[in-house]
Order: sequence, then C-alpha cells, then structure tokens
Amino acid sequence: MPFNLSNHVATTTAMADLFDDRGILQAMLDFEAALARVQARAGLIPHSAAEAITKAAVADGFDTKKLAVRAFRAGTLAIPLVKMLTARVRQIDPPSAGYVHWGATSQDVTDTGLVLLLKRAHRLLAADHARLASALLRLSNQHAATVMLGRTLLQSAPPVTFGLKAAGWFAGIQRGWSRVDGRFGEALLLQFGGASGTLAALGTRGPEVMAALAVELELSDPGAPWHSYRDRLAALLAACGVFTATLGKMARDISLLMQNEISEVAEPGGDGRGGSSTMPHKRNPVACGFTLAAATRVPALVAAFLTAMIQEQERGVSGLHAEWPLIKGVLQSTSAAVSSMAETAEGLSVDAQRMRTNIDAARGTVFAEKAMMQLAAEMGRDAAHQALEEAVKKAALQECRLSDVLTGVLSGKQLSELELPEDYLGAAEIFRRRLLNDGEA
Amino acid sequence: MPFNLSNHVATTTAMADLFDDRGILQAMLDFEAALARVQARAGLIPHSAAEAITKAAVADGFDTKKLAVRAFRAGTLAIPLVKMLTARVRQIDPPSAGYVHWGATSQDVTDTGLVLLLKRAHRLLAADHARLASALLRLSNQHAATVMLGRTLLQSAPPVTFGLKAAGWFAGIQRGWSRVDGRFGEALLLQFGGASGTLAALGTRGPEVMAALAVELELSDPGAPWHSYRDRLAALLAACGVFTATLGKMARDISLLMQNEISEVAEPGGDGRGGSSTMPHKRNPVACGFTLAAATRVPALVAAFLTAMIQEQERGVSGLHAEWPLIKGVLQSTSAAVSSMAETAEGLSVDAQRMRTNIDAARGTVFAEKAMMQLAAEMGRDAAHQALEEAVKKAALQECRLSDVLTGVLSGKQLSELELPEDYLGAAEIFRRRLLNDGEA
Amino acid sequence: MPFNLSNHVATTTAMADLFDDRGILQAMLDFEAALARVQARAGLIPHSAAEAITKAAVADGFDTKKLAVRAFRAGTLAIPLVKMLTARVRQIDPPSAGYVHWGATSQDVTDTGLVLLLKRAHRLLAADHARLASALLRLSNQHAATVMLGRTLLQSAPPVTFGLKAAGWFAGIQRGWSRVDGRFGEALLLQFGGASGTLAALGTRGPEVMAALAVELELSDPGAPWHSYRDRLAALLAACGVFTATLGKMARDISLLMQNEISEVAEPGGDGRGGSSTMPHKRNPVACGFTLAAATRVPALVAAFLTAMIQEQERGVSGLHAEWPLIKGVLQSTSAAVSSMAETAEGLSVDAQRMRTNIDAARGTVFAEKAMMQLAAEMGRDAAHQALEEAVKKAALQECRLSDVLTGVLSGKQLSELELPEDYLGAAEIFRRRLLNDGEA
Amino acid sequence: MPFNLSNHVATTTAMADLFDDRGILQAMLDFEAALARVQARAGLIPHSAAEAITKAAVADGFDTKKLAVRAFRAGTLAIPLVKMLTARVRQIDPPSAGYVHWGATSQDVTDTGLVLLLKRAHRLLAADHARLASALLRLSNQHAATVMLGRTLLQSAPPVTFGLKAAGWFAGIQRGWSRVDGRFGEALLLQFGGASGTLAALGTRGPEVMAALAVELELSDPGAPWHSYRDRLAALLAACGVFTATLGKMARDISLLMQNEISEVAEPGGDGRGGSSTMPHKRNPVACGFTLAAATRVPALVAAFLTAMIQEQERGVSGLHAEWPLIKGVLQSTSAAVSSMAETAEGLSVDAQRMRTNIDAARGTVFAEKAMMQLAAEMGRDAAHQALEEAVKKAALQECRLSDVLTGVLSGKQLSELELPEDYLGAAEIFRRRLLNDGEA
Repeated sequence: MPFNLSNHVATTTAMADLFDDRGILQAMLDFEAALARVQARAGLIPHSAAEAITKAAVADGFDTKKLAVRAFRAGTLAIPLVKMLTARVRQIDPPSAGYVHWGATSQDVTDTGLVLLLKRAHRLLAADHARLASALLRLSNQHAATVMLGRTLLQSAPPVTFGLKAAGWFAGIQRGWSRVDGRFGEALLLQFGGASGTLAALGTRGPEVMAALAVELELSDPGAPWHSYRDRLAALLAACGVFTATLGKMARDISLLMQNEISEVAEPGGDGRGGSSTMPHKRNPVACGFTLAAATRVPALVAAFLTAMIQEQERGVSGLHAEWPLIKGVLQSTSAAVSSMAETAEGLSVDAQRMRTNIDAARGTVFAEKAMMQLAAEMGRDAAHQALEEAVKKAALQECRLSDVLTGVLSGKQLSELELPEDYLGAAEIFRRRLLNDGEA
Repeated sequence: MPFNLSNHVATTTAMADLFDDRGILQAMLDFEAALARVQARAGLIPHSAAEAITKAAVADGFDTKKLAVRAFRAGTLAIPLVKMLTARVRQIDPPSAGYVHWGATSQDVTDTGLVLLLKRAHRLLAADHARLASALLRLSNQHAATVMLGRTLLQSAPPVTFGLKAAGWFAGIQRGWSRVDGRFGEALLLQFGGASGTLAALGTRGPEVMAALAVELELSDPGAPWHSYRDRLAALLAACGVFTATLGKMARDISLLMQNEISEVAEPGGDGRGGSSTMPHKRNPVACGFTLAAATRVPALVAAFLTAMIQEQERGVSGLHAEWPLIKGVLQSTSAAVSSMAETAEGLSVDAQRMRTNIDAARGTVFAEKAMMQLAAEMGRDAAHQALEEAVKKAALQECRLSDVLTGVLSGKQLSELELPEDYLGAAEIFRRRLLNDGEA
Repeated sequence: MPFNLSNHVATTTAMADLFDDRGILQAMLDFEAALARVQARAGLIPHSAAEAITKAAVADGFDTKKLAVRAFRAGTLAIPLVKMLTARVRQIDPPSAGYVHWGATSQDVTDTGLVLLLKRAHRLLAADHARLASALLRLSNQHAATVMLGRTLLQSAPPVTFGLKAAGWFAGIQRGWSRVDGRFGEALLLQFGGASGTLAALGTRGPEVMAALAVELELSDPGAPWHSYRDRLAALLAACGVFTATLGKMARDISLLMQNEISEVAEPGGDGRGGSSTMPHKRNPVACGFTLAAATRVPALVAAFLTAMIQEQERGVSGLHAEWPLIKGVLQSTSAAVSSMAETAEGLSVDAQRMRTNIDAARGTVFAEKAMMQLAAEMGRDAAHQALEEAVKKAALQECRLSDVLTGVLSGKQLSELELPEDYLGAAEIFRRRLLNDGEA
Repeated sequence: MPFNLSNHVATTTAMADLFDDRGILQAMLDFEAALARVQARAGLIPHSAAEAITKAAVADGFDTKKLAVRAFRAGTLAIPLVKMLTARVRQIDPPSAGYVHWGATSQDVTDTGLVLLLKRAHRLLAADHARLASALLRLSNQHAATVMLGRTLLQSAPPVTFGLKAAGWFAGIQRGWSRVDGRFGEALLLQFGGASGTLAALGTRGPEVMAALAVELELSDPGAPWHSYRDRLAALLAACGVFTATLGKMARDISLLMQNEISEVAEPGGDGRGGSSTMPHKRNPVACGFTLAAATRVPALVAAFLTAMIQEQERGVSGLHAEWPLIKGVLQSTSAAVSSMAETAEGLSVDAQRMRTNIDAARGTVFAEKAMMQLAAEMGRDAAHQALEEAVKKAALQECRLSDVLTGVLSGKQLSELELPEDYLGAAEIFRRRLLNDGEA
C-alpha cells in the first residue's frame, strides 16, 4: 500500500509506487543477487551460492514492517536485510548462507539500491517532460500572433504575444530538463567500496568485481567508491530544484491569468478537477496549485541535502540517514510538478478575444512608452518621459484614452496607430522563434 | 501499512502510525461527525442525520487508495472524502445524505483533521521529552564532580565537569520543549469558516456553531477562522526546529566523545543497535546519527513552511497543499530525535577514569590560562599571555609538562597545584545547579 | 559608509546604520569598558585601569579596515580588537594595558556586543510595528461596511468586507509581533563565561562579576554562560521569520488587489515611489515588492541559523562564524518589511466603488453557495450542489446573471435578494471585531 | 569602505571589494555607456550623445549614499541612477541628456551590471581553486604510502592512506569546480529586453542592437531577453552550493583530524592565525571554521534563490529585489571557503608517525573484518561475523590485542600479518590514481 494520504498533494501515483516498500526492498535485493553472481563468475564464491542467493533475493514474503522497525534500531536497512536474506538462503541451501553480502558494506547496498530507483525515476520524469515540451511547442506556434498585455510587477505593460509567453515557458523548461537529464547521467553509478572504501576484503580483486558488478546492474562504473562524496546526487537534486522552480513560474503565470477579472486562460477541467466542496461555481487552478506547492517544498529539500553533504571521513555519522526522505521528496515533488504542467499545457484553454479586450480596457496607457519614444526623438528621452507621465494622469482624470489627450502632440498617423498592439511588438516573433529553436537544440 | 521503508531513518513507529492513512482519514471523519451532531443540537439539521453521519464516519472500509488518487485530481482530500461519506450515509439513511458537510468548506475539514492529529503528536513527544529530561537530571547530579576536558573549537581547553555538560543539555532541552509545548497550546484550534471565512452559509448562527464544535472536538475556539493565517502552525514548527537543533547539539557532543581516541562516553548497545554489516568490532553512534539526521532535515522543512505562509487573500492557491508533507516531516523528525536522545541518556555509559586520563594526556597545557592569570597579576595580562604562549611551545618541543617549563616562574605551591583539574573549575558547580533549577522551573 | 548598494533592496537606512562598522565596534568596546569598571569596583583590577580602559574604548580612530582584515585571519573579531584596545590603553596609561579583557574569552565580547546591537534593533522594529498596527486598526474600522469579493485559490468567492480583510492582517501582525517582542526579551542576555564557560580565571568571583556586569550593561543576567547554546537567538530569528511571512502575506494580497484589472487598492505614491525607467504610466507595488523579497530571504536565513546551532562541546568550530551575516540579514529584512508595510497601510488608497463593481461583474455566480444552501434545505446539500453547478454553467453560456437562470427555482424574494452582498456576509462583522480585540489584548 | 565588520567571517577582502559600492555602480554605468556607443554606431542616437554619456559614466563623484536611499524608495537602483547620470550628461552636453538609457528598462541595467560583476567573481574563484587543486595533488602524491585509520561513523575502521583521502578531496573539488565553471559560462549573458521583453521601443532594430551590445561588453548574446527566467543564475548558485559543501566536507575532516587526541594533521599557523584571546596554548582550526560557516550559510541562500525564481509574467513583483543579497552572499561565502581551503592545503602539516601510532592504539580491532574474511572462507560469512564479534569483546575485556585472542583460530602466518596496515589496503592505491586522473581530465 504505497500511497499515504499525507502525500496526497505531493506526487503522482507512479512515483509513489516507485518508492513503495516493495520497490525499495527489491532494489537492494537486486544488488545482493548481482554481487553474488559476479563473484561466482570471478571464482570468489561457489556458483551454487550465487544461485541460492539469486533465488532468495525476491521481495515477496519479506516482512517489511519488521525490517523497518529493525532498521530504525540498527541505523541502516542493510543490517537487518542481510540477516533476513541470509536466513532465507539458509533455507534454500545451508552452505550458501555464508556467502551473502561478501566483501560489501552496508552503504554499498543502500546506495546502489537507491541508484537503481533513481534510474526508474528518470524514465518517469522524462516521459512527462516530453509531453509538456511538445504541448508548449504547439501552443506557442498556434498563438504566434495572439496579442496580449505584457505584465511587469503585476501591472499592465506594452503588449506581447501568447506565443512568446509560451515560448519562454518552453525554453525555460528545456534548459531545466537538460540539466536534470545530464545530472541523472552522472549520478547513475554503482556504489561498491567495502568497509573503508578500499575493498580490502576482496584482496586484489576489488576493481575487477566492481567493473563486472556495474555491467551486471547496467550502471556506470564509478572508478572509485564515493561513500562520503554525495556531490553527484546533490547536483541532481539541485537541477530538479531549478527545473521545478521554472515549472512553478509557469504555474504562477497561469494561475494569475485564470483570475476571474483576467480570464485569459484556463486549466483543463472535468474528471474531478478543480471544484469546491461548497462553491458550485468554482473552477480552481488545481494543477497550478500542486506545482506551486512542489516549488515551495523542493528548494528547502535541496538545501537540506547540501547541508547533509558534510559527511565525516570515510563515512559520516548521519548524512546518509538524512538523505532518503530528501531524495524521495525532491523526486516526488518534481514528478507532481511536471505531470501537472504537462496536463495543463495539453488542455489549456486560451481566450484570444479576452486577451485583446483586456488590452483595450487599459485605454491606451500601455502605449505610453511608445508615444514617449516618438516624442523623445524630438525633445529627448527624459523630457518625453515627464510629458507622458502627465498625459497618463490627464487621461485617468478625464477617463479617456491616452490617444485622446495626445491630440496635437503626436501626428495624426501616429495617433491612429498608437494603440494598435500589432504595431508595437518589436522583436517578439524573432525572440519567440529563437526560444523555440534553442529549446529544441 | 503505515511504515514506508524510505522513512526508516526518519521517525519512530508510533509517530509513523499516527500519520498513517487510517489515522488521517478518521481525524477528518471525526470533524464531519462532530459538525453534524452540533448542528443537530442547534436545530440546523435533523437529529436523524447526525446519527446517520456519525455512524458512517468510521474509517474502516473506506478505500484509501481511491481516495488518495481522487484527492490528487481534486486538489484536496475533502472533496472526494465528502462524496464517499455522503454515499455511505445514503446507504444508511437516504434523506440524511443531504446534510453532510453542512455549511463547511474543504479547508475546514482538512485543517481541523490536521489539528486533531497534532494533538496526539503532542502527547507522543511529551512522553519522550519527559524521559529525556529525567535521565539528564540524574546524569548531571551523578557526575557533578566528574572532571573532564573542556573543548572549544574541537581543541582541548580548561576542565569542566560532566555534570555541567549534562546540565547544559538539560537546560537547553527544557527551554526548547517549553517553547514547543507552548506553541502546541496555541495551535490546537478548531478551523471553521465556510467558503470565504464568514460562515455566511449558516446565516447568523456561525459563531454559535463554531463554539459548540470546538467543545465537541475538545479543541480551542479560534474566535475567527484562520484559513490563510498559518502563523500558529509556523510558530509550532519553528519551535520544533529550535528544539531539534538542541537535541542535535547533544548528539554531536556525544558522537564526538564516543570517538575511539576519546572514548569518554558510549551510547547504550545491545538489541540490534549500532553494529556494522562488515566490521565486527564496531559500536556506532546510531541514535546520535538519527538525531543529527533529523536536525539536518528540520531547518529546511521549517523554511519551506515559512515560505508557504504567503497565502493569497481568503485562501491561497498552493500554500495549504505544500504544508502536509512539511508538518508530518517536522513532527516525525522531532520524534525520532527526542526518542533517540531519551534512549541514549537513559543508557549512557560514562567513563570517568578515561576523562581524567584524557586531561592528563594534555600534559598541563590546558592550564596555560590559569598560569597566565597568576602571572598577569604581576606583569599584566598581555605580557603574561605572550609568556605562556612561549612556555607552551617549549613544553611541546621538550615533550614535557607545562609545569616543568614554569619552574622558577610560578611559586612552588602554584606549580604543585597548577595541573589539578579540581582546582580550576571556577563556578562550574554553581552554574550546573542554576541550569538544573532554571530547567525545572 | 554603512550603506552598501548591494543592500539597496534589503533594508532601511536606520537598520543599515545600526550594523555599520562603527556601531559594531562600539558595542564590543562597551563590553570591555564595562567589564573593567565592574572589576575595579570588585577590587579585581585597579580603578586607574578601569578609567584608562573606559577612556580608550571609543570607536573613533580605530582602523576598522585593518581590524576586519585581521579578524578574517584570527577567526574572531575579538583577538585583534583586544590587541588594538590594549595598545591604546598603553598610550594612555601603560600599567593599565595589563588589565584589558581580564578573565574574558573572545566569544564573551562578540556575543555581548551582538546583544547590545539587538537591543537597539528591537526599538527600531517596535516603532515601525506600532505605526503599522495603528494604521491597520484605522483602516479596518473605516471599512467595516465596505463589501468586496472574497477570493479563494485566486478565484472569486462569496463577499467579505475590506474591514474584515484588514482585521485579518492586523491580528496576524499582532500575533507575529507579540512573539518577536517576547523573544527579544529572552535573548537580551549578557554573555560572560571565560575559556570553558566556568569563569575559572576569576576564581570564586565569577558569578558576582557576571551579575554586576549585566547591571552595568542594562542586560539580563543569564545565570550561566550560553556559549554553545544559541536557542534563544534562534527562537528570536524564527519569530522574525513568522512575522515577516505574515507581512509578506499582506504584501501579496495588496499587490494582487493593485493589478490593473482589479484596482481595488493602491500603495501610496509620490516622492520617487514606484515608477518605471521606461514606462511613464506605471504605478508599481514597490513596498509590496520589498516586503515579499524580505519574506523570500528570511526563511532561508532562519534555516541556516538552525543548522548552525549544532555547535560542538563548550564552543563550536564554526557555528558562531556562520551567525553574524544571518542575524544581520534577518533583522535588516524584517525592518524592510515592517517599515514598508507601515508606509503602505498609512497611505493605502481604497476604492470602495471599484470593489462593488467587481462583485457586480461576477454576475451573481459568487452567490451560488447561497442559492445552494437555500435549495439544500429542501433537496439536500449534494443534490443542491449539483443543481447549482448546472445553473452556473447555464448562466455562463447564456451570458446572463445567476439569478436569471434560477427563476422558478428560488422564490421571488430569494431571487431579489440573492445578489446583495450585504445579505451574505455571515459573521464577517463579528469576526472583524474579535480579530481587532484579540490583537489589542 | 567596502569591508563591513559584520562580514568579517564571511568573505575575502578581494571579494568584498568586488561588491563594494563603487564596483556595483561602475558596472551599471558601463552598461549605459556601452549602450550609447552601440546605438550611436547603429545610427539610433547622435555620436555626440554617446561621447557625452561615456564621459559621464564614471563612478567617481556619484553620491552612492543618496543613490542607495533613493533606490530603496524607487524599488530599483536603475531609476535614480539614470536620473543622476542624465543630470551629469546634461552638464557636459545638454542635448545629449535626452539619449541616456535609450530603449532600455531598469532590469536591463541592473541584470547586466550584475553579470559584469559575476565575470570578475569567476576569475577570483578560479585563481583560488587552481591553488587548492595543485596543493591537493601534491599532498596526495606525497602521501601515497602514508597509512592511517579509516574512520566511519566517527569510529575506527580498516586502514586507508592519507594519499587516498587527499585524492578524494581533490576529485570532489575538481567535480565541484567543473560544475561552477560550466555554469558561469552559461550565465555570463547580456540582459537587454526593454519594457516587456520585446525591445519594442527600438522598432525592428532590437536584435541588432542586442548583438552589438553583447560584443561591446564582452558578454554572450542571449538570443532573447531572460527577464523573468533566472534559471541560469540559479544553476550557478546551486553549483557553488555543491562545491562549497565539498569544501566543507574537507574542512570537517581536517578539523576532526586536528583534535588533540588525534593530532594527525594541522592547519598552517603563524601570522595571527588561530590563537585564543584567553588560552595561550590554543591552535584553532580557523580556516576550517570559515569554510564550515560558509557551508552552513550557502545551502539556505541557494534555497532562497530557487524560491525567488517564481517571478510573475514578464517581470516579477519581488524576485529580482530578493536576489542581490543572495548572489553576493553565495559568491562571498564560496570565496571564503575556497581561499581558506587553498591556504590550508598549501600549508598542511601531516604527521605520518602519529597516524601509525593511532592505528596501533586500536590494538588490532580494526582488522576484525580482515580476520572475518579469512575465517569466512571456511565457516561462512555470518558465522565468522559472529565469531569476530566475540573475539573483539574478549580482547577488550582482557585489554589485549585482537591477534592475541585469535591464537589457534588463525594460522601463524595469518596472525603475524593480521595487524599490518600495509597488508590490508585493498585497492587504495588504484583508487587514488583513478581519483587524481578523473580530476585532472
């Protein structure tokens, strides 16, 4: 039963399942079985032992509750796990029981088990990212010419296009994923070092077993153990942090555009989405809420992991203990965010008409900069800035349009074109295409 | 199955159970049942409805997996919960189904459910704290006269007593718990506000229902809803953060004193504690490791909660969603820390002989300040500081005691008493008693 | 020159000045001078030495740049400071040079200096808080009957009053300040412990000197040194964190209400406030921006301080070094936030007409809950919820008001009163008064 | 006066100078001057204006205190800066005053100014990193055969070499720097977008001016403005966080090895380093303290920056305001850490004799794993583990060596070689070489 209600806002079902008891247990058992097979091939332990260990190393039937309680006493999952596995092997083939966990230390099995789970998490995240990227690309192209208000410091600004905004999301998300993807590549490493990280228990055979074990588990050979060097994991979590923050920026943008007074976009509804238990009229930005919640949690988890990196000497007192809930928390939150934004982008309603209406409701004031630049050519930028500040105030007082108060100041042609959004988009389309191209590269 | 292996280093079994699916679900159902009973008494809904709702509001038989999946879609546990409960009530007494969740909003049930869980968490923490405080009091009194090296910046310093050190832990933990305890008192408040926090759906009866509901649930009446004001919860978590950090300081101290080269104290062993999967000689500081891991995680969770406090207007987009995993994480980590230190204090081995040996091994250098103050009376403090710096260097070069190189500089009596730890404890015993008294007050 | 441009967004001028070089230096010199005077009175050092030290202990003329560079080498400000002060005393009265810093350790002077600065910071914050509280009280009373949309999850909800909203800010800020104020009271303690925290260098006179020194510096007597126990400082910073987050919530609310499409309130302008370097029409939420920036930084600084609390044994390797920038950062950010919100509350424009217009623009949908409760009395709550969901959809399709589509469903009287905001405020006014009263108590 | 005493523990003098008022101001003026020259070349403004602006854009003579106070009111440094610069240009050549800041927005100048400072910070950090890497390489090679205790969970473990330990530090630091270096490369981008990020004020000439401006300032052309996309900066700070944490791990290791009871290494002393204001005998780990303090602060600053990434729409309300103190804090702390560890590595004393003595003092128990593996070949790993646990207990009770209690259990040859550290190093030397090679690649 992997899904705890207290996580109900924290992750997707798939990512919850990945870190369930069975998943964690099997990943560690996979290490022990692969180690035995590789050592048998190297002549270090009998082939019969490798067979018995592989047979016993199946999560079904392990008492995970008992395992967890004992792990809390032992200070590591590995010690009770090795004991339980050894007892099982003994039932299958008594002499083989002596070859379980040969030459390995606790952290070898917990770290490698973790890396095997990371490998699966990578695939889950990649699939959701691909959906999101493809939906944003489509949205941006579809709305290349859809004008809307720019908004800076939550105030109306000169127009942009919705295509440009979506291209910004797209490019940010592509940069973010590219870092996450790269960091997964570096972190998917076998851990195998023995007691002090020298593999002394294997005499001179350590590096050879390490190489073969990496192949057996389809992980990279680290070259040397990394027991107290957690920088690759930290870099991965930090990349998830940057990625999730960009997803959070997209979610903030969308939740703001969904305000009833703005109503320019809406999350997809239906199927139990976004209602209220007491307000029948509500259409809440639920996927945005999940994403912003993830973006609230993840930075702190990243910080705690960086702090936990100070691990003493060959292996630290507590760093490793601190890590699991942090890693799980970051991956599950990232998953919640990317899947929520993928669903949102795929089903986003965009109201181009309302976007134009909102520009119009600003009564031309968002074109004050445009008028200023036209006047600046004659009177200089600072004098023009002051003139327009006054014009805007006058228009507000008289409740008329900016062009109304500039009659006689701008030429007739300038006036007639002043408030056309299409006429003041600058390089919006050029930038949009560049953002899409950069993101695709 | 409340205990997830990925939490194996994060909490005690009791606190894991508290936040399991059943516990969370029942706390929310308790709110709905109490609401119905109170409203029936107030004449707002039929008594038969209150009976049917109370009968249906039992966690057994709810499909928590389905509930969790629907909650992830709805953006809140409340909506699917109210639907499922309504369906159950309909089976018991069809007309009563119309009175479930009368006048309440989603956040009323999720927040009050949370507060009910907090109340139980308070009791769990209080019990472990009491064990810890009592063990430290005993240790301090028992070792009032046990001298040991002071250590500053991880270097040897003039002596202290182990009783003073334990009194420092005790007083710090008492101050810390006193804050936690006080903040629980402020946070155990009913949440009940309806859609916009005005209880408008209950007409003029809102405050009356609020008061009665608080009594029914044995919580405090908040006076007004606190939907988007999370400061009392934040203050509670922050107090847990300060408390856990003090526990972490105690754990760091003990783990350092347990280093083989120092060996002045040891965590209790036995019963699966502190071994190594590959090193038969190991006695690891396991409880210290859990505590330090908790102290590594909690500050970040507190920070995330403070960030999540920025909740928009009457209820925010995401703050509430962000909170559950943070609250659970803080309470579970605090529980791991306080129970680990309680067990440690109760069973701590203290080697008074080794403490004296370690003072002796410093060959008198830790009494350099004492000699300096004696000389300072004649030659001034700065000249004396310089003279002792040279004396210490000389003693190191000649591999002799500090008193050996001060012959002729200090008097015979001064020399014979220079390296007696009991003679340079200053106000250690006075401070020790004050720390114990302050902590008891 | 205390004001660094890189701080330009981080604090007020007064708080920047408080932590300038001169302020820090003088606070530490005040400790050394007071220590000498107290020790002279106790007969521990000559009166002439106390006079000379007091005379020399004036910040003017100290080379703070040199001091800073040496402090970075020594690992503490105290060592070079004591050396420089000793040299100055020697110039005034050579024999007195031997009595500087008598029996004290570095941390005694740096901690007590810090506490003296905290005392001044307390007064600065208190003054700004008082302005803010008083302005919010006035705003709430003035707008007790000003109706506006409730907003939950950034979507329109049943009405509230602006008076209730301001009362929520008020009560939150009062609770927050009350915690900050209380924590200052606990933290304004003398630090005085000598090398290992036993005051051994003063023989049996330590506690007596400690008590007199506290009186001399107008600080509380801690009873015992607290060198490696930083919980009182941590609790103070955490309280600032909760307070600043509540200020951030107020700032977020105001910045959202200032959006052009909503325009219900506006920050005071004038005097260089809130313009744009290129957009003459802009009126930016500048004070909100500062406050939200503070609320973004402070949680992390609090977390780092909690982490830094793990200080080894009698004094730690690095915790103290980590603290200064964190404490300064929290106090300066808190100051920026509270002064920004004080200025905002004092000058806030409130557009009651626009608030009513915005309710009206929702075409009655925000009263769907009200209609549902009226129908629920007959058909049950869940059937009514469904009926209203359909009614709202119908009204949206037909672009008409909610009351239009409920003709024949509700009674004539119900219909005519359905969309009156004053008729659906529930206990808003009762809650408003309670929030003001609680905050004043 | 760039150096504030409150920063005395936070950074190097060079990095403090880099972020002083003059440095920040000049970086922003460089943007304005370069913009004018590029626009003159493009025919957008007169050449005479470019000359006058370039002439005026010199930090000397600007009143930075006034600028800071006005910036706190305006919400950005750019507005008062542009006003002051315009006034200066007017004095030089009145008509040119109209061409200052042509087509740019506030964030263009503040962001680009920041990036120009980052470029210099990069060079400072690179120099210190190079010193550190080279010193560690030397240490590792020099001590390839120096045996010492491995230590896991702060308990003695089978031996390693100091060369392997130094190689671990080296490789970790090389990976860390490589990430920092790469992220600087991506972040050194021009910012230039105008009001809404479309450069509309420049009509169709925006992209052309952007490209030329990047060349003029020797920065990369971003392709499109990145006003509300802070991911490249975040990735840089996160990389600094991972790097600093690895430096912190090295500092923790060294400070532990410097404990008097261990005394295996020592930081370089002399020149005001590491003394105590009251204890003449102290040799404190000062550089380690700075580094650990940096490693305590940086994670939190990274977290705050990730949180600040949620910037609304085209430019956010507060994110940018939040950033400067965070960026400065991370770079200054990283600088303190890397320069402290460079100095430490360059002057580290290594006591190979003491390292061997400390192994010997463990009386063979750290070879329990070795004996276990020898027995395991016959009796199986779990039986051997149990046998050795008992042997270790027996040796402790009898206060004799492990080999003494294994007489008759191991062969004579095994016994005579059991406690030779050189005989149980496994792949230490192979791993050492690989770590050095990986780091150099």
